[in-house]
Amino acid sequence: MTIKIGILGYGNLGRGAESAIAQNEDMELVGVFTRRDPSTLTIATQGVPVRSANDLLEGEKLDIDVLVICGGSATDLPEMTPKYAARYNVIDSFDTHARVPEHFANVDKAAGNNGNVALISAGWDPGLFSLNRLFGNCFIPQGKGYTFWGPGVSQGHSDATRRIDGVLDARQYTLPVEKALDEVRSGSNPELTTRQKHTREVFVVAAEGADRDEITKQIVTMPNYFDEYDTTVHFISQEEMDRDHSGLPHGGFVLRSGAMASGATSVIEYSLKLDSNPDFTSSVQLAYARAVARLNAEGQKGCRTVFDVAPAYLSPFDGDYLRSHFL
Amino acid sequence: MTIKIGILGYGNLGRGAESAIAQNEDMELVGVFTRRDPSTLTIATQGVPVRSANDLLEGEKLDIDVLVICGGSATDLPEMTPKYAARYNVIDSFDTHARVPEHFANVDKAAGNNGNVALISAGWDPGLFSLNRLFGNCFIPQGKGYTFWGPGVSQGHSDATRRIDGVLDARQYTLPVEKALDEVRSGSNPELTTRQKHTREVFVVAAEGADRDEITKQIVTMPNYFDEYDTTVHFISQEEMDRDHSGLPHGGFVLRSGAMASGATSVIEYSLKLDSNPDFTSSVQLAYARAVARLNAEGQKGCRTVFDVAPAYLSPFDGDYLRSHFL
Repeated sequence: MTIKIGILGYGNLGRGAESAIAQNEDMELVGVFTRRDPSTLTIATQGVPVRSANDLLEGEKLDIDVLVICGGSATDLPEMTPKYAARYNVIDSFDTHARVPEHFANVDKAAGNNGNVALISAGWDPGLFSLNRLFGNCFIPQGKGYTFWGPGVSQGHSDATRRIDGVLDARQYTLPVEKALDEVRSGSNPELTTRQKHTREVFVVAAEGADRDEITKQIVTMPNYFDEYDTTVHFISQEEMDRDHSGLPHGGFVLRSGAMASGATSVIEYSLKLDSNPDFTSSVQLAYARAVARLNAEGQKGCRTVFDVAPAYLSPFDGDYLRSHFL
Repeated sequence: MTIKIGILGYGNLGRGAESAIAQNEDMELVGVFTRRDPSTLTIATQGVPVRSANDLLEGEKLDIDVLVICGGSATDLPEMTPKYAARYNVIDSFDTHARVPEHFANVDKAAGNNGNVALISAGWDPGLFSLNRLFGNCFIPQGKGYTFWGPGVSQGHSDATRRIDGVLDARQYTLPVEKALDEVRSGSNPELTTRQKHTREVFVVAAEGADRDEITKQIVTMPNYFDEYDTTVHFISQEEMDRDHSGLPHGGFVLRSGAMASGATSVIEYSLKLDSNPDFTSSVQLAYARAVARLNAEGQKGCRTVFDVAPAYLSPFDGDYLRSHFL
């Protein structure tokens, strides 16, 4: 069975999903949908139509097995995912942790009432890191869990820096503190403050004549974004920015450690090192899109998360092959 | 719901399962079953009966939700798991990779025909490492996977060494080669030979007057066990053995790396560092026992592996809690 994928939204994630389809032989891109004027959009794949997002909601239902919804968590997805889940199987990467219960309930209602499966919050965090937080809790029931992010670019922090007067361009890297990581790896279950776990490094292109000390001060004291961290600011040229900081690398670590009933310590560590955050996120999303198509083909409906998907559903291979090759 | 656990076999794994139950508040040990004379066995838990393994097969079915079968993969489990799966939900740690298809088929038939759920090959390898091999293949479809074991004690290699003339006691450690691990972590997808991935270190207590050079030669040239590895042999006293080598630590690494369609490299690394191999294995088994009880309560039947279990089934917490705390 070929899984027919539609992509809604053509930013970093949409383009990532488009290109990842080439690595999944059981999938086919059947359309890219946009809220912009479709005639203004040129996509990488030849022969695939670019259509208005309205076409998904109006008229006849299109022949799409799973719609990958690529939008922002702040305002796009809370509105988009339930709306499209009422007509199609969908997947999103909703990542506002505090609003997951509400989003889940809305999507569950829309998908469940219409016989569709929706999977929310697919990616690596939330997503694979979530799985490892859950697994750690199950396999080391009496222990402590840790998540470290980076080294990697935080787009939210980069954007916040760009809004400062006199800043022309900025890139923010989140860095895990190696000493803290090593303490956790030792199994000592340390208590770590925000400042002890991560540092931040910002590369800034300043306008000519801008007050660099003032820019630095505004960055390092910015509430919520930087004030709880040790932050280093570097001023560079736009050339250096374009040459050295155009990628979107990311990654991180999920650890769990604790004592078994005998007193013996166990430490589980999961880590990702990604040259391209959106490309890997898209690859994870496509594997979960495969699961969504199968769950729906089995007659399931409603909202799911990565916690609800048996790993075998993610793979193009059948059970015999999986047991022979990966068990 | 309290999950009633029976333990069949009281070696390292059986004792590990018994002690792990104390860390899982939703579980209760209802009996330890042995093929020995039950009167010769004293268990750690007060007030729990030790009974003959025959009691599981004869007479009335006992009130057990999941039977944890603790036996060897070579001869015990191929015979035991299907036999007991015909009467009870069961879980085992079958680890002879080449014979998994046959074992799966036998257990599936016995469990399926009698309305029970059986989960085979639960632990960390096979088990959690299997999951990570599968995940890696799904999320980095075009890449290479690697498994490294250790540092840790291999009981098979220790036993093989003990069978050499003049060897009174022996302990074998498997060690991953740090340089090879680092090459894999770099994302260069190296081809690695057996010798390049692991070394072996053996601690031997020799009989008085034994020929140590001969013992060393017999160890390092032993076919299948040592001949393909660089092996170091240390002669120590029985006192040193008892003092420094009485534990059963183990662990290892599962890595997957490859390029996304864009060319960007992704590396996934999963690792375990375990002071006690059997204790952690048992803890993993109990989490899967919880899943087995639930799957069966839902009306499922037949053989499963870790690939077939949605992560949420492993946790004592409900979906709302999982989404709020771990997603």
